[in-house]
Amino acid sequence: MAVEPYRLTATEVRAKIQAGELTVEAYARSLLAHIEKRDPIVKAWEQVIPHLNSRGTGSNLITDMPTQHGSVLYKDSTPQVDAASIIVLRDAGALLLGKTTTTEFAATVAGPKTINPHTASSPPVRTPGGSSSGSGAAVADFQAPLALGTQTGGSTIRPASFNGIYALKPTWNAISREGQKIYSLILDTLGLFARSVEDLQLLADVFALADDETPTETFDVKGAKIAFLKTMVWPHVGSGTEAALGKAVELLRAHGAEVQEIEFAAELDGLPEWHATVLHSEGRVNFLPEYRVGKEELHEFLVGHVDNVNKISRAAQLEAFDNIGAARPKVDKMLGAFDAVLVPSAVDEAPEGLGSTGSAAFNAPWTALHVPVVNLIGFGGPNGMPVGVSLVAPRYRDRHLLSVAKAVGKIFEAKGGWKSQL
Amino acid sequence: MAVEPYRLTATEVRAKIQAGELTVEAYARSLLAHIEKRDPIVKAWEQVIPHLNSRGTGSNLITDMPTQHGSVLYKDSTPQVDAASIIVLRDAGALLLGKTTTTEFAATVAGPKTINPHTASSPPVRTPGGSSSGSGAAVADFQAPLALGTQTGGSTIRPASFNGIYALKPTWNAISREGQKIYSLILDTLGLFARSVEDLQLLADVFALADDETPTETFDVKGAKIAFLKTMVWPHVGSGTEAALGKAVELLRAHGAEVQEIEFAAELDGLPEWHATVLHSEGRVNFLPEYRVGKEELHEFLVGHVDNVNKISRAAQLEAFDNIGAARPKVDKMLGAFDAVLVPSAVDEAPEGLGSTGSAAFNAPWTALHVPVVNLIGFGGPNGMPVGVSLVAPRYRDRHLLSVAKAVGKIFEAKGGWKSQL
Repeated sequence: MAVEPYRLTATEVRAKIQAGELTVEAYARSLLAHIEKRDPIVKAWEQVIPHLNSRGTGSNLITDMPTQHGSVLYKDSTPQVDAASIIVLRDAGALLLGKTTTTEFAATVAGPKTINPHTASSPPVRTPGGSSSGSGAAVADFQAPLALGTQTGGSTIRPASFNGIYALKPTWNAISREGQKIYSLILDTLGLFARSVEDLQLLADVFALADDETPTETFDVKGAKIAFLKTMVWPHVGSGTEAALGKAVELLRAHGAEVQEIEFAAELDGLPEWHATVLHSEGRVNFLPEYRVGKEELHEFLVGHVDNVNKISRAAQLEAFDNIGAARPKVDKMLGAFDAVLVPSAVDEAPEGLGSTGSAAFNAPWTALHVPVVNLIGFGGPNGMPVGVSLVAPRYRDRHLLSVAKAVGKIFEAKGGWKSQL
Repeated sequence: MAVEPYRLTATEVRAKIQAGELTVEAYARSLLAHIEKRDPIVKAWEQVIPHLNSRGTGSNLITDMPTQHGSVLYKDSTPQVDAASIIVLRDAGALLLGKTTTTEFAATVAGPKTINPHTASSPPVRTPGGSSSGSGAAVADFQAPLALGTQTGGSTIRPASFNGIYALKPTWNAISREGQKIYSLILDTLGLFARSVEDLQLLADVFALADDETPTETFDVKGAKIAFLKTMVWPHVGSGTEAALGKAVELLRAHGAEVQEIEFAAELDGLPEWHATVLHSEGRVNFLPEYRVGKEELHEFLVGHVDNVNKISRAAQLEAFDNIGAARPKVDKMLGAFDAVLVPSAVDEAPEGLGSTGSAAFNAPWTALHVPVVNLIGFGGPNGMPVGVSLVAPRYRDRHLLSVAKAVGKIFEAKGGWKSQL
């Protein structure tokens, strides 16, 4: 029996459509039927396109959908202009299915209604992670092959890890963030979700991501130089992530890679704190409008930013901003000595319940450093939930990193021991 | 005879309204009548509120006005959501009069229709500067007491200098830029225009600009330590700016300030080039959507960014980004040794004609360095046009800088030799 179209990756769909084996309309109907079946359970969507237009694409309809930022303050807000990323996707012929859920302003860890699809038929329910909760869940649940998210702390890599899908947090500012609500200008990054690295490469093409040197088509793991970096937040690690990374190192070595453990220089120990200082200070500026207009409807964590409850001085804010700035070229140099560097994606499996989307501790330093990060899949935790591991590379080596991730991901998916049951 | 309400500063208007000597409605009618008279000549507005609402404020109408970014690509774009700055102003009770002209995406020097109001009755016509052309012209021409603009190169301080008004380019990211089209995330800065420093202080209050230490109410020029910094772009200076700065130094000394000439360290010579490299590289990302959708309608300068015509490598982009980052704390330290540092605002008087809005050469380094800059008035050039001079201070000393600017501005306005004839 032929596979249902909704289960295909975007790359596969494109090939079939170009070969005349599938129509856009049939593909769209397959996806929408699957969404209709699964949405009452997974609840990944704020809104799905209400109907297909005459071309069967529905692609003109995103501007008619509310942009609510997960906040009642924007309940009726329907900006009649697309985000930059949507303009580019639309122009590339993408079928825009709808808007997925997010935590409030993609800025809190209070979970939306969305559940982790891997727990849909086996309680207890777990979080899909956040803030890009719906995007992570929808892609894992075959309701969309691709999705967009953002990452200011760990809002792309964490949900990818929790849902068992691939994701790229590109180099900061390599893709326009126009149209996304601002939390922190120096941290907010558009993120990409997919079920294959090829699909991330397809999106990278669409968004004109380009390194100085085009990487080789096929990266060879044999003889590759890979580093393993626990980072300064390693004391937070859970058993699932620790085991996944151990297995990852083992698999890489078994396939001929040279794996070397490295450490951040002690002078970078402050990275998590610098990230938090910058985040809170920039949130102080960027949530002022919502604070002024509807403080009582704003999450207390964000009210706290504007009230500067942590009494962060301008001097401390600038010191953190400048320290991170000074760290970036140093870390680029450290990472650049390897083909890629293996790091944790999240503390562990997705936590139980929907109350909290989990910790961004393992992601925040990389967000601050602006480097590209890819979440890889193939490993499972003590409860059978997916556990991601990440590869990182220096800034603007996104295409190189994807090339490495494609080769390494094949090994992890084949031998890591976890497979999606969805 | 009492002065017409439209000629008052915002601070004066507020006092009169609070004292019951003026109604909001009478004030609005005075402004609108003046706009009606002057707009056919100065052409500072893209759109003025079509009518006052029942409260006489018209303040709910901005979201109904098109946001065109000075580009035909956005001709019919009417986003149904306000920019962050507008939300804050509206919440503070501001009377929102309309939208002023800008160059295309505030990103080119090709002038809009707006003329410099000081040349309205004495040809040849001159540019009001840009990119915030209409804001600079409208405030100078008493069509609004306050206006917003942006600065990525010199788009706030240059029009302020050319139009003979005060302006504050605050510390980068000290005011939310949400809702402004992105050219460069690390450079774009919201700018404020007014006809008095008190009015800039009023806006600073509204936008919650706060230093670590609240400055003294009255800054004393006598005994003040002021530096004079020509910067590395001094070879571009025109006779008007050179004479204005000479006079400014003389007046400061005559009023008891200790003025010392300082220079940038040679390692900062690259600042103008680093600014250009970052600007073009970030423009490459942020104009991709417009390039994809309507390349033929986009200014060739911006098409060149996306096409990367200068062949700026990622390595060069990162080097420029990091070099500026490393320069910021050093320059803060240098500036912090003085009460304020006097620098040029623009090459010279506003150039003739409307074809070009002039050079941002003297502004770009300060934009890149993220420090606050205030344009001061009081000096005139060889053709009787205004010539501004600027004061700068370290990042997040905006309130201190305004305090110094208020005291110094009084001297320059009284003794600089130029007075507005408008």
